[in-house]
Amino acid sequence: MIRLECDYLEGAHPAIMDALVKTNMEQTCGYGLDPHCEHARNLIQEACCNPDAAVHFLVGGTQTNKTVIGAALRPYQGVIAAESGHINVHETGAIEACGHKVLTLPSDDGKITAGQVDRLCHAHFFAQEGPEHMVQPAMVYISNPTENGTVYSAKELGELRRVCDKYRLYLFLDGARLSYGLACPNNDLSLEFLSRTTDVFYIGGTKCGALFGEAAVISNPSLNKDFRYAIKQNGGMLAKGRLLGIQFETLFTDNLYFSLAAHAIRLSEKLRLAAQKMNIPFRYDSPTNQQFLILPDSFLEELQKEFSFEIWEKTDGTHSAARFCTSWATKEEYIDLLIKKLEKAPSV
Amino acid sequence: MIRLECDYLEGAHPAIMDALVKTNMEQTCGYGLDPHCEHARNLIQEACCNPDAAVHFLVGGTQTNKTVIGAALRPYQGVIAAESGHINVHETGAIEACGHKVLTLPSDDGKITAGQVDRLCHAHFFAQEGPEHMVQPAMVYISNPTENGTVYSAKELGELRRVCDKYRLYLFLDGARLSYGLACPNNDLSLEFLSRTTDVFYIGGTKCGALFGEAAVISNPSLNKDFRYAIKQNGGMLAKGRLLGIQFETLFTDNLYFSLAAHAIRLSEKLRLAAQKMNIPFRYDSPTNQQFLILPDSFLEELQKEFSFEIWEKTDGTHSAARFCTSWATKEEYIDLLIKKLEKAPSV
Amino acid sequence: MIRLECDYLEGAHPAIMDALVKTNMEQTCGYGLDPHCEHARNLIQEACCNPDAAVHFLVGGTQTNKTVIGAALRPYQGVIAAESGHINVHETGAIEACGHKVLTLPSDDGKITAGQVDRLCHAHFFAQEGPEHMVQPAMVYISNPTENGTVYSAKELGELRRVCDKYRLYLFLDGARLSYGLACPNNDLSLEFLSRTTDVFYIGGTKCGALFGEAAVISNPSLNKDFRYAIKQNGGMLAKGRLLGIQFETLFTDNLYFSLAAHAIRLSEKLRLAAQKMNIPFRYDSPTNQQFLILPDSFLEELQKEFSFEIWEKTDGTHSAARFCTSWATKEEYIDLLIKKLEKAPSV
Amino acid sequence: MIRLECDYLEGAHPAIMDALVKTNMEQTCGYGLDPHCEHARNLIQEACCNPDAAVHFLVGGTQTNKTVIGAALRPYQGVIAAESGHINVHETGAIEACGHKVLTLPSDDGKITAGQVDRLCHAHFFAQEGPEHMVQPAMVYISNPTENGTVYSAKELGELRRVCDKYRLYLFLDGARLSYGLACPNNDLSLEFLSRTTDVFYIGGTKCGALFGEAAVISNPSLNKDFRYAIKQNGGMLAKGRLLGIQFETLFTDNLYFSLAAHAIRLSEKLRLAAQKMNIPFRYDSPTNQQFLILPDSFLEELQKEFSFEIWEKTDGTHSAARFCTSWATKEEYIDLLIKKLEKAPSV
Repeated sequence: MIRLECDYLEGAHPAIMDALVKTNMEQTCGYGLDPHCEHARNLIQEACCNPDAAVHFLVGGTQTNKTVIGAALRPYQGVIAAESGHINVHETGAIEACGHKVLTLPSDDGKITAGQVDRLCHAHFFAQEGPEHMVQPAMVYISNPTENGTVYSAKELGELRRVCDKYRLYLFLDGARLSYGLACPNNDLSLEFLSRTTDVFYIGGTKCGALFGEAAVISNPSLNKDFRYAIKQNGGMLAKGRLLGIQFETLFTDNLYFSLAAHAIRLSEKLRLAAQKMNIPFRYDSPTNQQFLILPDSFLEELQKEFSFEIWEKTDGTHSAARFCTSWATKEEYIDLLIKKLEKAPSV
Repeated sequence: MIRLECDYLEGAHPAIMDALVKTNMEQTCGYGLDPHCEHARNLIQEACCNPDAAVHFLVGGTQTNKTVIGAALRPYQGVIAAESGHINVHETGAIEACGHKVLTLPSDDGKITAGQVDRLCHAHFFAQEGPEHMVQPAMVYISNPTENGTVYSAKELGELRRVCDKYRLYLFLDGARLSYGLACPNNDLSLEFLSRTTDVFYIGGTKCGALFGEAAVISNPSLNKDFRYAIKQNGGMLAKGRLLGIQFETLFTDNLYFSLAAHAIRLSEKLRLAAQKMNIPFRYDSPTNQQFLILPDSFLEELQKEFSFEIWEKTDGTHSAARFCTSWATKEEYIDLLIKKLEKAPSV
Repeated sequence: MIRLECDYLEGAHPAIMDALVKTNMEQTCGYGLDPHCEHARNLIQEACCNPDAAVHFLVGGTQTNKTVIGAALRPYQGVIAAESGHINVHETGAIEACGHKVLTLPSDDGKITAGQVDRLCHAHFFAQEGPEHMVQPAMVYISNPTENGTVYSAKELGELRRVCDKYRLYLFLDGARLSYGLACPNNDLSLEFLSRTTDVFYIGGTKCGALFGEAAVISNPSLNKDFRYAIKQNGGMLAKGRLLGIQFETLFTDNLYFSLAAHAIRLSEKLRLAAQKMNIPFRYDSPTNQQFLILPDSFLEELQKEFSFEIWEKTDGTHSAARFCTSWATKEEYIDLLIKKLEKAPSV
Repeated sequence: MIRLECDYLEGAHPAIMDALVKTNMEQTCGYGLDPHCEHARNLIQEACCNPDAAVHFLVGGTQTNKTVIGAALRPYQGVIAAESGHINVHETGAIEACGHKVLTLPSDDGKITAGQVDRLCHAHFFAQEGPEHMVQPAMVYISNPTENGTVYSAKELGELRRVCDKYRLYLFLDGARLSYGLACPNNDLSLEFLSRTTDVFYIGGTKCGALFGEAAVISNPSLNKDFRYAIKQNGGMLAKGRLLGIQFETLFTDNLYFSLAAHAIRLSEKLRLAAQKMNIPFRYDSPTNQQFLILPDSFLEELQKEFSFEIWEKTDGTHSAARFCTSWATKEEYIDLLIKKLEKAPSV
């Protein structure tokens, strides 16, 4: 069975395992205050060209999302997100459990626009009978890449920043798969740009080569105030915090974080171009490490005997979109075999 | 200025004021355990033909909604509602503040169907990768009448009950304007039916003749367990609870609750039939005490000089729907004057 | 049966009932934005000599406490209170339900000192391994009078203010029984002083002559930001808000609020002095409207046949403290009868 | 510097690191549903002689505590714990952030008794004016070993179980350092006994040889219902859940979990007996891996030049209790050196 159903099937890149083993018997203090975390923070500040950014390490994405959002909002405030946003769909209501509504915007490709945010905020702050009967928008949450593999351009992010400034909203970018976004062909973002444009974003480790771990980069000092209390209260303060430091130290040494993503993107592109050539339609136009191919259900059933992948959604009575992911760990031969198989797909 | 913008412009029906003054110097214990509350509870149980129903008095609608929903759900559970549902739009995130997501269903007229609930639950409980990544549906919230003045039929409620049983969901009916629903021409519901069909519903006082107050009727004993703790924790336990008892005692004596509504409905019908005759279109087909007339913006501007009402929404570039409410306190001459005025409206 | 078990046995002072009846058919907008609320706000600002103070009306004490505290604190912050504080003991965890810990200080008489607060804060902010593993103190909650009938002096409040400034804590005074505190013989506080010294306090109506209602006075503008959202989310925004405005309008006209309290204090003093003369010991030295007399259990049992009061606590194997409350509505003859009865108490 | 300040200074036991490296490139599904987790669950069920117990893996202690407690309680319920309990002091209000009060009992040695629980519950459920004004006790939380290194006997736990049954409370045992408790000389508990006696307990990994991880063992099926939703919502569902499975697989193979603890206990006993012989007083009588020695402040200052340890608390004007921890990773020579040093301590 060739497994392509997600990008967290294996452990960590061997360089990370080596670092963990090598440092195993070191004695350090806990809770992220050790020298490895300190070093990793410096490396990330450098990569962001932002020595003033605060960097905090958390274990996973849901934890990071709820810690950041919970720390940012007042009780009556909500966070704007695409209907398909991870916080709205796949976190078992973790944001609501912190007391906050997710204010959703429709989106076909997972992205939201500055115009949508503007209209939602205008409707709220200029409501006829006073806005206080409704949840106050206070943050915009986006993912890059989105759940659908699409990416924001620098222009789009700049526009979101401006509408956030207009209504005094925080801008928060979930980067669970950030490396794959930054490595994709039509990307024009950089860590520096993200750290200047958002109030907070995070650099995903779990899906990008680490065993686990997300590095939250907070550029807005008011959001950083007492942030360690928020981490601890949310159960996100790892006792042996150095495990996170060591992993991000390794990822941000010798460009590893980006070269791992480059491998995944090269294979994903290979698949994409091949499918394009075969006139297989795509559910989303994804330049990142997830490809959503629309194929006949009967063919998909056949394919599942040799490949594992996710059935994303029915697209019509006889077809579905199937999601194929590459990662730092994907072998090129797997993609070659998949392409060969696809060539036998009946035309849609 | 003739005011028709909502149904809580005045104090209470004079019979209620009389009762409050008459009992003012009585000494009673607090927190809803006094003889007036006891009596009112009995009167409501009788009106529901349900001596086993538990009856609790709360001060307002938002408070009742969050107390009931918060008491019913486990932390990872959510409540299904129409997108336009009061809990989703007009309670400043009170439900989310209790930790729960509102799982929304699209609806044009404010009603949701058993089929919609079934599809949402099916998608959840049979999710490909395990349902635990998503909020678990556990309750259906409906209003009767809805925000749009529409009402459920006994058949529709029965179907909702069945789908609730299928997926083990509570069925909760918000009756903030219940009297107007029960008094409307095409109603086929009764308090008895509601108490048999829902797990919990409430009988609105605030908008139906009282100074304030909602009577929650709980038929499902598991929901009633420790409910007084929930009321107290939610800040809903009125120290001088008898004020609620006295009001509901009065409303449920000599059929007052229903006769007040009958007055409002008669005037609302008068307006509705007149507008129909004039070929004025309606935004919703409402048989209750709210009428949503679509009129030219220029005419509405003119009308606002003499009448107050709510501009509900733009319906096209030059028209809007305007909401006119009647209540137990509305004078017939006001509706007559409005009808006369409408006769001068340019045809749409 | 002569009832002295609490200070909310009756409805409202007749002047309030008159005002409610007289205004009953007025049409006003809802949610506390009507002219009566506006007028009452002005009267209270004047009484506080503080035209910049924000005044909000809420229905009850628990609701006010959780709304104020929930609006003030960040998620990882807590509120300091006496162990016997109402928020810690008698609100069914309403503060915790908003996510906040009550950080308790021991107190025999219900009061806490600046020194206690200082030590608690010092221990927190200078904790050996970083304070972020513990709840951060951010507010001091006191009641005046306390649950035990005791009152703070201006000097004590000034000291609390200073320690709050030192550690950047909010100072919040629960005034559920405030009128009785301000009217007592050894009081040296005033509404003006309270509004200058606290960040927020409230003027209790429920226990001081109103049907219900508490007026929160917020002097610190940062606390007032978006406060109406907080009221709505907490279910505390009364639809017919004018009911609160009309009551406080009445209480703050012709000095009613204070003259009602003066009556209660006069009777409470009469009881206190009589008991002192009889050498009956007191559980607390209360100059306000609650007297806590230590009496033999056998005598209390006898007394309960004619008088209702609260058994506060056992003080030894054969004695208990009993609480007797006076209020604006207490008749002098009741206190006279009680005194006569007490004269038959066996000496302790 | 010889470090003895806590029991999580190093990474993991080498056998765990080996297992992680060996399995690194395996492809498995996520979220704890992989074969390693399945295997580890079986091994723990066997060790508990309880094939019906549910076993869930979480990353850390605070996360486990809030997930278990949040899943167990209704909103108005609280958890009983010692004042010094970890959930009350060192989790930044994580329990309150889930909405629940910690109902504290005084304790000098970190343990609470059945009698204390009984009195607290009796006072609640038989409260004079109805219990609903107070938080309802619904769970007892204990740690074994406690924060102070003390342990419960089977008799004491049995009594707690009975009082829990009497008042229908859950019994939850925090086993962050469980291995050290089970390995200590006067222990008479076993995993089997714990799984029969508690509703839920957890087997600590972080402080007992793993990189991280706690295994919650739930014997009460009603507590286990939907527990995976609770884990996910609390941000505790590790994407690469197998990391937890692999670690517990290793710990529960060849008795590793217990032999690691035996090493720590042997060294701790060595220290304890030596200190006893020197007549050094102990703050607590701890048979586990933490020793709390009372020493002159001047000597402690001297000692800190070569050893790191925690200053626990001042015991009088010139002495403090110092905490020394051993662990699976402590070298015997370190303890020998410490003992040699202590011999130079001035007698107290």
